[in-house]
Amino acid sequence: MGITKQSATPSAVCLLSGGMDSAVTAAWALRQGWEVAALTVHYGQRHQVELGAARRVARQLGLETHREIEIDLSRFGGSALTDDVEVPKHRSIESQPASNDIPVTYVPARNLVFLSLAVAWAEARGSNHVLIGANAVDYSGYPDCRPEFIAAFAETARLGTRLGVTGQTLTVEAPLIALSKREIVTLGRDLGVDFANTLSCYDPSEAGLACGGCDACQLRARGFTDANITDPTRYVTPPKVRP
Amino acid sequence: MGITKQSATPSAVCLLSGGMDSAVTAAWALRQGWEVAALTVHYGQRHQVELGAARRVARQLGLETHREIEIDLSRFGGSALTDDVEVPKHRSIESQPASNDIPVTYVPARNLVFLSLAVAWAEARGSNHVLIGANAVDYSGYPDCRPEFIAAFAETARLGTRLGVTGQTLTVEAPLIALSKREIVTLGRDLGVDFANTLSCYDPSEAGLACGGCDACQLRARGFTDANITDPTRYVTPPKVRP
Repeated sequence: MGITKQSATPSAVCLLSGGMDSAVTAAWALRQGWEVAALTVHYGQRHQVELGAARRVARQLGLETHREIEIDLSRFGGSALTDDVEVPKHRSIESQPASNDIPVTYVPARNLVFLSLAVAWAEARGSNHVLIGANAVDYSGYPDCRPEFIAAFAETARLGTRLGVTGQTLTVEAPLIALSKREIVTLGRDLGVDFANTLSCYDPSEAGLACGGCDACQLRARGFTDANITDPTRYVTPPKVRP
Repeated sequence: MGITKQSATPSAVCLLSGGMDSAVTAAWALRQGWEVAALTVHYGQRHQVELGAARRVARQLGLETHREIEIDLSRFGGSALTDDVEVPKHRSIESQPASNDIPVTYVPARNLVFLSLAVAWAEARGSNHVLIGANAVDYSGYPDCRPEFIAAFAETARLGTRLGVTGQTLTVEAPLIALSKREIVTLGRDLGVDFANTLSCYDPSEAGLACGGCDACQLRARGFTDANITDPTRYVTPPKVRP
């Protein structure tokens, strides 16, 4: 009998943005005993300091394989994260976003593109899992963070790759999708993630400081407060979090 | 009452590779009365002459908007079209490929990545249609050309974009999916496609001549013969097509 794919260590491709959620996702995958290859996408975002954060996270987690790929989504436009449009600050994050209220920081089809790239690499290297740090609880109301999108994508990936033909399995998972930011912070702490390496801000300074005012900064800061864990983030102006 | 999206000319993003099928697809979309924006993806393919073909096709069809975007899928490997692996020649194309026989020219998740990029642009520019020249009859057995993949992708795109939230429609269509190569050639002729501009070959010469031996050349040549239309393709060695 030959060695089957199943007998090898399961392996995963994990999207790694440099933010907190993808760092915790990668650490979660390592805890499953999987070999984890990280994929960082340079997509023309204004906050290039994210990329340095992704490298630090990969190094701290001991990921041996970390690949960066460029796709300039700013050529399509349509987002404050790639265009010269102001990132909104100090919006209320207390209520869940209305279902049709998609913020200007949404990048058209970003997670669809990112997941497709991760699947392409997973297929080429024979990985069994694709992971994304999407979260649908304390989030900005992006359609591509919803569980029904992730589930539909997983089926599409199966049908559109060699895997759907050979019967090999490829899962597409968002292990944080149902967690609150408090739970994500606690899980990350338990998994040994050094949050000082991560950067969640939509509009960081050139020196890599988080702005403290955008949705991402506010949600992150509240997560640390709620988890009763010290927030190591360096902010330009620390967010005011209600006690 | 304001002007609604529906009252404007419907618009489409059409993937344009430089091959025959995508050219006929773009011409088909124009015939629907749609404004057609073409998207060509430089994906690290060995046959860069494809890109010149895409430009000629866009010009001949009078497409005012033609955007090119780069994503280097050769960084992931796994295909004869991006890697230094020989493209098979003179395989029998007489029988449909077995369902688990995926040729080395398959590029992992290529159509998934391409369609995702087309959806990103369609969302950003407010287009209602995304088009791909995929074909599942006279094809090389690629999983991402199957109708069930296209249908699943369309639903995933709806869920993962603003459109699924606002209720706007975005269709993802492969109008040639059920046509034979003979029917594609005939349709293209009727729609005024100048086939001399198109290049279907997996392994063209640097001067842009088709090899004549790869699956794509053989399928294309047989399509012209079956349609009883003169093949204007310049081949290194013209394929032998059974009468």
